[in-house]
Amino acid sequence: MTKTSVGIFIFEEVEVLDFAGPYEVFSRTRLKPGIESRRSEDTAPYKVFTVARSDEVVTATGGLKVVPDYGFHDAPPIDLLVVPGGFGTRALLEESTVIEWIQTQAAQVSQLTAVCTGSLLLATAGLLRGRRATTHWGATELLASLDESIQVDRERRVVEDGVVTSAGVSAGIDMAFVVVERMFGRSVADETARYMDYRRP
Amino acid sequence: MTKTSVGIFIFEEVEVLDFAGPYEVFSRTRLKPGIESRRSEDTAPYKVFTVARSDEVVTATGGLKVVPDYGFHDAPPIDLLVVPGGFGTRALLEESTVIEWIQTQAAQVSQLTAVCTGSLLLATAGLLRGRRATTHWGATELLASLDESIQVDRERRVVEDGVVTSAGVSAGIDMAFVVVERMFGRSVADETARYMDYRRP
Repeated sequence: MTKTSVGIFIFEEVEVLDFAGPYEVFSRTRLKPGIESRRSEDTAPYKVFTVARSDEVVTATGGLKVVPDYGFHDAPPIDLLVVPGGFGTRALLEESTVIEWIQTQAAQVSQLTAVCTGSLLLATAGLLRGRRATTHWGATELLASLDESIQVDRERRVVEDGVVTSAGVSAGIDMAFVVVERMFGRSVADETARYMDYRRP
Repeated sequence: MTKTSVGIFIFEEVEVLDFAGPYEVFSRTRLKPGIESRRSEDTAPYKVFTVARSDEVVTATGGLKVVPDYGFHDAPPIDLLVVPGGFGTRALLEESTVIEWIQTQAAQVSQLTAVCTGSLLLATAGLLRGRRATTHWGATELLASLDESIQVDRERRVVEDGVVTSAGVSAGIDMAFVVVERMFGRSVADETARYMDYRRP
């Protein structure tokens, strides 16, 4: 089967659960229910990989060290881009290489998503213009200040308005399930949550 | 302040959220509330690191590549050991080097914990003898078969009986919060959950 490629952007001081939550959900989704189907990629609808600016090891918040699968220079085409958050996003708002890479990806992906303060990067890239969006509760004012046309939603955990954004950290798990449900239906999303022993809100 | 060292064991085919969930919780806990306190380690009660058999890169389920902070040979003393699960646990049940390392650690840590099928490793190491414990819902019979003296709890997400074990994958987040709450109180645990936008069950 043709798989949807999921590129998860990682960077210095990315929040661990921001990227690991969606990584878990997308990489463990199977179209065939049960535990055994998780032992192979046969019925996996997604192919998940991490992408960083370069091939160098990325240190996430708290010190977790991750080897990116690709750098910007050699990443394969991405169907679904996940932009996680973390304190590291603040420095990246000034990094034109990163903002331009996100803009280039956004123009070709079929689905753009962000977790937590990842939405600050999307806003800076002009990708939330005129849209409803959310972010970590501690960053809603900053999000609004980056682009006044954004309708910042302070209530929902996941906001879908073309781009899919989520509230803080753990809400990235819910964001991923919303995307799985829209692409493959409620039963596939719920069964994957059951595999993960996760209670969707 | 003296920090509690949290060693998270990682291995080939460890489930991503099994180790990343507790990693997030312990590494983001702060005794001082708010977002700013998370920008430094000043009020962090835990020092979190990963430990693998060797220094080599570990590939988690789904392909995530993690550089362990330490191998068995150079890991610093561990106060709180987290043994996550994943399909990779099955091969490790036969690995005396791993089982013996867990036994050695268990004899010196102040708190032993497992997530999901990590409890299979503890059972094999004889560390759940006569205790109440849980695991992923798909592995409860295997857990019981490894040691008939274990009282397998099929209802609770987190079981505390000296050793703290959790149900599948995402329940590791809840396990970590239970430990934080017991060590530093309900308000510290709840405030960290709030920071993570996590709704404790």
